[in-house]
Amino acid sequence: MVTIKNREIVLLQRPEGMPREGDFALRQAEIPVCGDGSVIVKTLYLSVDPYMRGRMSGVKSYIAPFALDEVITGGVVGEVVETRYADLRAGDIVVGTLGWRDYNAADGRELRKIDPALAPVSTALGILGMPGLTAYFGLLDIGKPSAGETVVVSGAAGAVGTVAGQIAKLKGCRVVGIAGSDAKTGYLVNELGFDAAINYKPTPDLKNALKEACPGGVDVYFDNVGGFISDTVVTLLNYRARVVLCGQISQYNMSKPEPGPRVQPILLVKSALMKGFIVTDYADRYDEGVRGLGLWLAQKKLKYTEHLVEGLENAPRAFIGLFTGENTGKQIVKAR
Amino acid sequence: MVTIKNREIVLLQRPEGMPREGDFALRQAEIPVCGDGSVIVKTLYLSVDPYMRGRMSGVKSYIAPFALDEVITGGVVGEVVETRYADLRAGDIVVGTLGWRDYNAADGRELRKIDPALAPVSTALGILGMPGLTAYFGLLDIGKPSAGETVVVSGAAGAVGTVAGQIAKLKGCRVVGIAGSDAKTGYLVNELGFDAAINYKPTPDLKNALKEACPGGVDVYFDNVGGFISDTVVTLLNYRARVVLCGQISQYNMSKPEPGPRVQPILLVKSALMKGFIVTDYADRYDEGVRGLGLWLAQKKLKYTEHLVEGLENAPRAFIGLFTGENTGKQIVKAR
Repeated sequence: MVTIKNREIVLLQRPEGMPREGDFALRQAEIPVCGDGSVIVKTLYLSVDPYMRGRMSGVKSYIAPFALDEVITGGVVGEVVETRYADLRAGDIVVGTLGWRDYNAADGRELRKIDPALAPVSTALGILGMPGLTAYFGLLDIGKPSAGETVVVSGAAGAVGTVAGQIAKLKGCRVVGIAGSDAKTGYLVNELGFDAAINYKPTPDLKNALKEACPGGVDVYFDNVGGFISDTVVTLLNYRARVVLCGQISQYNMSKPEPGPRVQPILLVKSALMKGFIVTDYADRYDEGVRGLGLWLAQKKLKYTEHLVEGLENAPRAFIGLFTGENTGKQIVKAR
Repeated sequence: MVTIKNREIVLLQRPEGMPREGDFALRQAEIPVCGDGSVIVKTLYLSVDPYMRGRMSGVKSYIAPFALDEVITGGVVGEVVETRYADLRAGDIVVGTLGWRDYNAADGRELRKIDPALAPVSTALGILGMPGLTAYFGLLDIGKPSAGETVVVSGAAGAVGTVAGQIAKLKGCRVVGIAGSDAKTGYLVNELGFDAAINYKPTPDLKNALKEACPGGVDVYFDNVGGFISDTVVTLLNYRARVVLCGQISQYNMSKPEPGPRVQPILLVKSALMKGFIVTDYADRYDEGVRGLGLWLAQKKLKYTEHLVEGLENAPRAFIGLFTGENTGKQIVKAR
């Protein structure tokens, strides 16, 4: 008889600045018991996302902080291996918010069943999941791009940016991406059809580079990064521009907010809008979003890329890589 | 025979920082000739407004800068004294954008006739004019206050703030004003019915004072001032709050933008909206606004205060007073 083991990754201490692998620990655990109405899910893929950095700090935000010495939770795609929930059978593939574990027990009502015939199941963590929906609703509901307008996307090669930029192209916009390597900017222009892309790292004068890439100014700015990149983009906003605040990844590892030029005088003279959001603001429209994205994907109008790291034990490293620019497209950890 | 003289105020040099009277000059001028389709308007009241500071700098903005050695233009209420325009007769009272002069020639099509029976004609520069419409559209179209919500207004005792706060009260909100003297805060609470008002100048801990005045947080922030006051208010924004960027008077006299805490991380986690505007964004809805404000005024649901300075020659002083907190309500210059 083989003893099946369970493993889990816990938050050992709250990161100061950039997270380090030592902030996390891999621990042995019991296989959980399958209670009434629950299932046991074997992890196939787990998601690492920038927003999780906020939960690692002790600060109250829109989601409660992770507790110390407890398992990290996030998006997980897995296979049902035991079930006491009527609507799920062993072998079903599901997605939900679960622990970074080999095996999780989960309330069946909190899982969504995935049809593996439609697309690879890992897309439920990417283009057909939270990042795809984030791009979809943020761009369409706040950015409201019109054909002929110029859309700038920062963090453009990430899980959300790649989708936001492609949707803007589908809407007939000029799309300019900002990313942190030539491999990424090449990918944006050559694979995803962006009109231009700027590698900000070796660019001495970002404003000038943006002016060249956006000769008609900026109508929509889809902001994943914040900081000096965003300070620069907003100086090029057009009358009635829209700034979609999706993320501020450049700021997540700062222990104190960094001061910068105030944006209000610019928004004022441009009659411009800036709005923050979180994908759960649109929870009652997820079906619409998944249908829309799924249709474009089926029509081959959207492409996606996944950046895979293998092994649950490497999830902390994959997470840290989000902040050092490791990933192009959606960063996913494949369980072994 | 009496020789009628004309006088005008020109911009002598662009102010550096706070404007001084020496930046302006009073000059003798000819009475203009009344061309075909034009009228000669004798100035009764002229308006000084914070936005005019921007036009005194050489910087391109939403309106062209004032030219040096040329007359300052702004809102003027006057009496038609000569007419070659079919729809206006001598004695008619009109409002328009005219020079700071005793007598202006004006294209009849660019003037709006006022009915002196409805309200004192000077209100066409205040509650029934640009400042009133600014408050009306900014608060209702961007702020969208709902009954029971908390609305904070900065620059609350000014021409726009007094109207915005009163409209918010009419919508059933808790309204908190921020102003710069006890006379002003007393006026807001005792005369205009604000629920609370804070004199920020002697208040050592503005955040704490705001927390006390807004125990349920801030749902709408109508911002006339910018700077540290606004930095503080936004820390109290609620989920899905709206920030109406109407003015940034604290910043208008700075030669370089002052850095401050970035607002984006707050807007992000609160799913909050911030939007700039200028009243001309709503030019096609002015009639609706004037009707709405006029009705509330006739029903005595809105009060207004004018702060009068006498004499065209004192217009520069009245203008400067906007930045030193001289006025409660609408600052107007009455011609003699």
